[in-house]
This record gives sequence, C-alpha cells and structure tokens, in this order.
Amino acid sequence: MTDMQVKRNERLLKWLQDAYAMEQEAETMMKAMASRIEHYPALGQRIALHVEETRSQAATLKECIHSLDGSTPTAKSMLASLGATLSAAGNSMMEDEVIKGLGLSTAFEHMEIATYRALIQAATRAGASDIAAVCEQILQEEIAMAQWLEENQDAIVSAFLERDETPNTTAKR
Amino acid sequence: MTDMQVKRNERLLKWLQDAYAMEQEAETMMKAMASRIEHYPALGQRIALHVEETRSQAATLKECIHSLDGSTPTAKSMLASLGATLSAAGNSMMEDEVIKGLGLSTAFEHMEIATYRALIQAATRAGASDIAAVCEQILQEEIAMAQWLEENQDAIVSAFLERDETPNTTAKR
Repeated sequence: MTDMQVKRNERLLKWLQDAYAMEQEAETMMKAMASRIEHYPALGQRIALHVEETRSQAATLKECIHSLDGSTPTAKSMLASLGATLSAAGNSMMEDEVIKGLGLSTAFEHMEIATYRALIQAATRAGASDIAAVCEQILQEEIAMAQWLEENQDAIVSAFLERDETPNTTAKR
Repeated sequence: MTDMQVKRNERLLKWLQDAYAMEQEAETMMKAMASRIEHYPALGQRIALHVEETRSQAATLKECIHSLDGSTPTAKSMLASLGATLSAAGNSMMEDEVIKGLGLSTAFEHMEIATYRALIQAATRAGASDIAAVCEQILQEEIAMAQWLEENQDAIVSAFLERDETPNTTAKR
C-alpha cells in the first residue's frame, strides 16, 4: 500500500469513528427527548422512528470501522460533548423545552448531514465505494429527518404558543 | 392589556432575550474561528462578514427587547452553553479543526433559523409586526449564511483532503 493510500484510509477510519460517536450521542439525546414529550405526539413519533434508524446506522458504521481494522471509540469526543450539551437541553429547567429541543434537533441533523457529506468524499478518495454507498444511504435518512423537522416546525410552534397562552394548560413538552 | 396579551408579550420578550444570548455566543465562536483559519481564505472571509452581520443583529434585538421594557440577559443560557461548546470545537486539539468547525457552524446556523422562525410566529401573535419584520430580515441573513456553508462544503472538504494527504503540508485550519 502506498503512503498516500495509508493516509487516505487513516482519514476515512478517523471520520467513521467520529460519526459513530456522534450517532451514539444522537441516540441518547433523542431517546431522552422522545420519552419526555407529552403534548406533541407527531414529533414524539418521528423522533422515536429516527432513534431506530440511528441504532441501525451505528451498527452499519461499526461494520465499516471493523472492515478497516479499526475499533469503535469509547472516549467522549468533541462531537459527543456537543451531544451531551444537546441532551442537557432536554432537561426540565426550560419552560419551552419542546421548542428548544426542536431547534437543537434540527441543528444536530445538519451537523450529521455535513459529517456524512465529508465522509462520502473521504471514502471515494480512499477507493472504498462500499463505504461511500453506506454513507450515502445514511445521509438520505438524515436529510429526511431534517426536512421533517423543518416542515413541521411552524405547526409545533403554533401548538406550543396556543397552549402557552391558555390558562391551566401546560405547553412545555 | 388583557391577560392573554400580557402572556404573549412575555413569551415574545423571553424568546428575544434567548436570541440575543445566542447571537452573543455566535459572535464569540465565529470570531475565534475566523482568526484561526489559515489555508481556507474564502471560508475565513465569509465568517468575518457574518460576524459583522451578527453584531448588527444583536444591536437590533437589543432595541426590540427595550421596546418591550425588557433587559438584555447577562447570565449564560442553555443556548449560550451550546455556543461555548461550539467555540471549544475550534480549539487546537483537533487535526481536522476546519472540517469540524464547518459542520458545527452549519448546525449553529440552523438553530438560529429555527429560533427566528419561532420568533416571527410569537411576534405576529403578539401583534408586534415591527418585531416580526426585524426577525424576518435576520432570518434571511441566517439562511444566506447556512446556504453559503452548504454550497461551499464540498470544495472545502476537498481542499482539506488534498492538503491532508500531501507530505509537509498542514491541513487542519
């Protein structure tokens, strides 16, 4: 293997490991969020569905990492740390928890989209067309989730504001 | 003023204060990022431009907050805490700093987009059409920044990978 191919494989493996850590945190964050939602059932159901997709994505990434003789990361990365902050966003301190959770989930999806777009380039460059294809499939799931959140945001915000101004009604989650 | 109008004004004021805190952190994060970029001049210039837009946005939000007899927040909010994490992302520990910064900046822009979309609804509901118009203008600036990052991501990732695999060349920022 040439020095350049070694370098390309190393970069691809590193980014796959980062993506794996990111998906682990995404699962933690979204499970917490889905379990707390009470008054916004469509959002809760879409997040629960994406938790399942995320589990499957992590398993697929693990296979890709092993195919490059790498190991799945255990230490918290910077992305994991961001995830932890996003999880904290779901805490009960906020009286508009669902709205903040919606904004942060949308942000997280777009970080994932950027991550898989970069991974597709790295995989293609390393000649790993199978890994590029896997990342393309995950990318489409992330794009679909981001679009759902963006298309449903106005209705969720409207439902929140309606509840928020109605006496004896809770709006926060 | 009716109880409902009081409640609507309170919600609008709270979200304006959250947005102000978010823009303060955005400025901190982007200034740090722009100052560190060496090999990706187009990205550095676009971020520097958006720092200026962000300063102007914060000043406009401050006027809106004062018009509702509110004060600008000083304590760190959850959004500010997310911002701090994003800033940390720009630190020198990462050998792919520019790529992680790109993903996190895109994520942050989408959180801002969600924030202003919600604010426009809250302002409209409170009958504050002037504040809704201001938020619409800021929203367009955030959408333009997100689009720029998304349209330029592939070229920046490609330039990074090219430098990354070239001996005696630094790629990280």
